[in-house]
Amino acid sequence: MNRLWIENGTFVTMNEKAPVIKGHMVVENDRIIYLDEEPPNPLPEGAERLDGRGLLFMPGLINTHGHAAMSLLRGYSDDQNLQVWLEQKMWPMEGKYIDADTRWGTSLAVIEMLKSGTTTFVDMYDRMNIVAEVVEQSGIRGVLTRGVIGLCPSDVQTAKLEEAKSFARDWNGKADGRITTMMSPHAPYTCPPDYIERIIEAAHELNVPLHTHMSETAAEVQQNVNDYGCRPVEHLDKLGFFSRPSFVAHAVHLHDEEIALLAEKNVGVSHNPASNLKLASGIARVPDLIRAGVTVSLGTDSAASNNNLDLFDEIRLAALIHKGITGDPTVVPAYEALKLGTLNGARTVWQETQLGSLEVGKKADFIAIDTEQPHFYPQTEMVSHLVYAGSGRDVKHVWINGRQVVSGGECLLLDEAKIRAEAQQCFERLLER
Amino acid sequence: MNRLWIENGTFVTMNEKAPVIKGHMVVENDRIIYLDEEPPNPLPEGAERLDGRGLLFMPGLINTHGHAAMSLLRGYSDDQNLQVWLEQKMWPMEGKYIDADTRWGTSLAVIEMLKSGTTTFVDMYDRMNIVAEVVEQSGIRGVLTRGVIGLCPSDVQTAKLEEAKSFARDWNGKADGRITTMMSPHAPYTCPPDYIERIIEAAHELNVPLHTHMSETAAEVQQNVNDYGCRPVEHLDKLGFFSRPSFVAHAVHLHDEEIALLAEKNVGVSHNPASNLKLASGIARVPDLIRAGVTVSLGTDSAASNNNLDLFDEIRLAALIHKGITGDPTVVPAYEALKLGTLNGARTVWQETQLGSLEVGKKADFIAIDTEQPHFYPQTEMVSHLVYAGSGRDVKHVWINGRQVVSGGECLLLDEAKIRAEAQQCFERLLER
Repeated sequence: MNRLWIENGTFVTMNEKAPVIKGHMVVENDRIIYLDEEPPNPLPEGAERLDGRGLLFMPGLINTHGHAAMSLLRGYSDDQNLQVWLEQKMWPMEGKYIDADTRWGTSLAVIEMLKSGTTTFVDMYDRMNIVAEVVEQSGIRGVLTRGVIGLCPSDVQTAKLEEAKSFARDWNGKADGRITTMMSPHAPYTCPPDYIERIIEAAHELNVPLHTHMSETAAEVQQNVNDYGCRPVEHLDKLGFFSRPSFVAHAVHLHDEEIALLAEKNVGVSHNPASNLKLASGIARVPDLIRAGVTVSLGTDSAASNNNLDLFDEIRLAALIHKGITGDPTVVPAYEALKLGTLNGARTVWQETQLGSLEVGKKADFIAIDTEQPHFYPQTEMVSHLVYAGSGRDVKHVWINGRQVVSGGECLLLDEAKIRAEAQQCFERLLER
Repeated sequence: MNRLWIENGTFVTMNEKAPVIKGHMVVENDRIIYLDEEPPNPLPEGAERLDGRGLLFMPGLINTHGHAAMSLLRGYSDDQNLQVWLEQKMWPMEGKYIDADTRWGTSLAVIEMLKSGTTTFVDMYDRMNIVAEVVEQSGIRGVLTRGVIGLCPSDVQTAKLEEAKSFARDWNGKADGRITTMMSPHAPYTCPPDYIERIIEAAHELNVPLHTHMSETAAEVQQNVNDYGCRPVEHLDKLGFFSRPSFVAHAVHLHDEEIALLAEKNVGVSHNPASNLKLASGIARVPDLIRAGVTVSLGTDSAASNNNLDLFDEIRLAALIHKGITGDPTVVPAYEALKLGTLNGARTVWQETQLGSLEVGKKADFIAIDTEQPHFYPQTEMVSHLVYAGSGRDVKHVWINGRQVVSGGECLLLDEAKIRAEAQQCFERLLER
């Protein structure tokens, strides 16, 4: 039995009943078993002790949308619009990917996420067996899905669907439960309606949730109207997408009725502010979504459109941009922004009973921030400091499922230097291929 | 004679003729005397040698608007509108400031700026002698001004003006030339027109430039129209403000004619995106300002409205938000954004012949970034990586005026732990006072 006793730490719990606790936390195996101002009594026998002074402990961050392997394409196509970026730059390069590219691109993304405090990430890509292997080895938690594009002959559609189903079936619950799976049509504009229906049917059959890109750009919404006579939310609803647990990425361009329908159907929204700004897709109506009761969480999208995977950046952007856009400085206050990156992330991936806050009985997925830095002083409103001044580089230690995976800023289970070198070589070979 | 020879480094120069150089740089005393792909020939005698591998060298960042001492009020008033924040929270607390608060608040800000790669900062505050002493000691470069608010009896106005003049006269060119000074009415809405005229007259007399807050909120613009029958740009122009070298902070709410006038009068704009978003003031028309030929630079504003002083954050925000707002992903591309934080900062404070780029003959104000991190891989478009993935926490070493002031992330000339502790105590005493 493994026990860890953190003494004299500051805990930002994201539990509204006790948001900040200065005191003690005990972890036993993969669970938090104690969290209180007073030291545990009796003292936990045989526990490793950690001096928590100068550290702030909080739930690990949850990144609800991304494509990890695309980190090889970081900086490959900047300052261009989404369709050029996607169709002329990303897809041709991705078409040349081999297994090694997925492996080292994903590994590069995983070390960046772990070191910056992300303990759970959603990944939609292909060659997902490789992604799952990286998740298994790295100690991170993954919500994984083979995203399928249906703009292809029906035999290819079928092959992709079968691959996605096999992956979802084979890997669900694996890696000590750290991996869960979903089914994903890439987007309404890249999947014909009948193909989306087959994917939904497969999700029913496998009893897994659904994820997709939706309403990222005004152009794709207009195309949906032209092609199918309705906007994407109504379109997906008619196809039965929301009959299953589901969440969508982006959701930038929404009408009031669409927001109401997402709330009614309990559909989560992964807000990707940096990617949406960088590709000039627009700015999601986050305050309206929150007001309507939609579960909003945060995603980085890929490093090819962001271009980093530090979720603290998304938390700060979410807290800042909606104030500037709406003219209301009270929207998305600091605590709400931090919730988007933690508890709401857990809700989005249906794991809020296990993840997203520091509470007795929950999984021990948590991070330690080095607060002995000028930007955390004066040490008063620590939630505000995390949101408006914090960064993934402030993360010192990371635990997932009770196991320490980052110590002193270094990944314990992965060879960072090797991954950086392999990723560099993969990119250079992609250029030559 | 002090010489430093950096071998085998990557230099992002911000000199358009040679934007990236992989090679060698030699510093002699306070100047860059060599920068080339080839090693210097003859080799610089008696030079300290630095292995540049794994490091990226670039000009130090220039923060063109802030109030350093307000870092004591970081997190003291979040998620509120500017007038409440300013009049009900900031001014009452600032009214209780004593010398120690200015000293330790400024010191806290300076260590945060130095560690995150800012080598020159603009500061508008009071008790400026203390600020200047901190600048002198810390090794940073400061463009300092005693900002005056004129909403007070005329004898108090006169006393403040005399204090501002004395400061500007006494400290200009001090600290080995690292300090320059300006005169500053706080804002058109806090200074009666005749008081602004007296300040302008003093600037003429002392031959120093002018700085002010301008058009930060729609409300203050409207008040200007109500009180003086014109908008702030025209108002300041009529008062003769632009007859001297000058730059303004914020400039969020501008009409086309105002942008044209700022360009014509060669008035710089310090764009403060995080502060403007956080206080919901709005979003400056940066692409239009740049297109019109206005020199746009970046400021953090104070840690009470940001809430950090990492200029990399402002660089990234400047690159991201204007794309999202305009719907044009090509505006403020990565190189332009980095220029706002470096060369344009130097232009704004009239020091572009000395600062803002790595060039032979310029002052040796530069920083070294640790690029052996996942978010800088693959190592391809380093300017893009700096802007879209970089952070002040990636800064390893800092040199100002040829002198190393940060090494391995630690300030060499200031006692960081003492400053953090003193700042904490100052804030706690402010609450009690």
